[in-house]
Amino acid sequence: MPIQSFEDLLLHELKDLYDAEHQIVKALPKMAKTVYSSELKAAFEDHLDQSQQHIRRLEQVFETLNKKPARETCEAMKGLIAEGDETMQEKMDGLLKDAALIAAAQRVEHYEMAGYGTVRTFANLLGYHEASQLLQMTLDEEEQTDKLLSQIANGVNVAAMEEVAAPRK
Amino acid sequence: MPIQSFEDLLLHELKDLYDAEHQIVKALPKMAKTVYSSELKAAFEDHLDQSQQHIRRLEQVFETLNKKPARETCEAMKGLIAEGDETMQEKMDGLLKDAALIAAAQRVEHYEMAGYGTVRTFANLLGYHEASQLLQMTLDEEEQTDKLLSQIANGVNVAAMEEVAAPRK
Repeated sequence: MPIQSFEDLLLHELKDLYDAEHQIVKALPKMAKTVYSSELKAAFEDHLDQSQQHIRRLEQVFETLNKKPARETCEAMKGLIAEGDETMQEKMDGLLKDAALIAAAQRVEHYEMAGYGTVRTFANLLGYHEASQLLQMTLDEEEQTDKLLSQIANGVNVAAMEEVAAPRK
Repeated sequence: MPIQSFEDLLLHELKDLYDAEHQIVKALPKMAKTVYSSELKAAFEDHLDQSQQHIRRLEQVFETLNKKPARETCEAMKGLIAEGDETMQEKMDGLLKDAALIAAAQRVEHYEMAGYGTVRTFANLLGYHEASQLLQMTLDEEEQTDKLLSQIANGVNVAAMEEVAAPRK
């Protein structure tokens, strides 16, 4: 679809995020299953529920614009998830892998923060205030998830360092 | 290389960022050449200089750890840059393309913010304070670049909307 107006550009960006969220929903159960820390497992499971809600919220956004929800392959998210997959397949201590998976997940969150920041701004400029508010809600939640992952990392990183220095019997 | 310690994980993440910065340095001249807004062009050119400095700074970090600088393919950055390439190839109004390229560039900045945040934290935990300080400097600069892009977007977005409504003769 050619991009001929600012609204086309907004739609293009929304389709990218709609695809990205679907990719995340597919990847998260595997990540939650892989991790060692129960706190991190719960965070990934909660974020799965949240991402499913973000998909529904994007569908609401498309609806407010009188458009059908559609996906456009998000190449960046494919790369981000490929990196996470590589990490999951590495042979390494469980807590060390948790630290690596938090790093991968925070990159995903940052992608979403940049993406939702852009569409929120575009929707606002175009006067689509309902859409803008919905997108701001998701942006806020992505930022909270990123902060939560940083908090969990504090504990996991220290535990991983101690664990590697004195491994479980 | 197997990841058996927290230091191995730090090195793995540093190699990912070292590769990412090289990919960015390769991509930016094309982006600077493509854009319509002179302000955005200058921002991309400045960020090219900055990214070259980030490469040198990563080399200093490897040095403080007594390791040789090395790259490990950053799949996520490949995806991010592929998205930017797609945008550059789209047939669209110059200012509209600028708005799309800012969106792509902010996703790149966010990847780097997440990545440098992680290695700064890891280096700090491991007691590599010089490395941690160097990485914090780069993190601060990535955050500043992201803010600058948001500022430029304010002007570009409005100009793009007006332009599309009343195109240049």
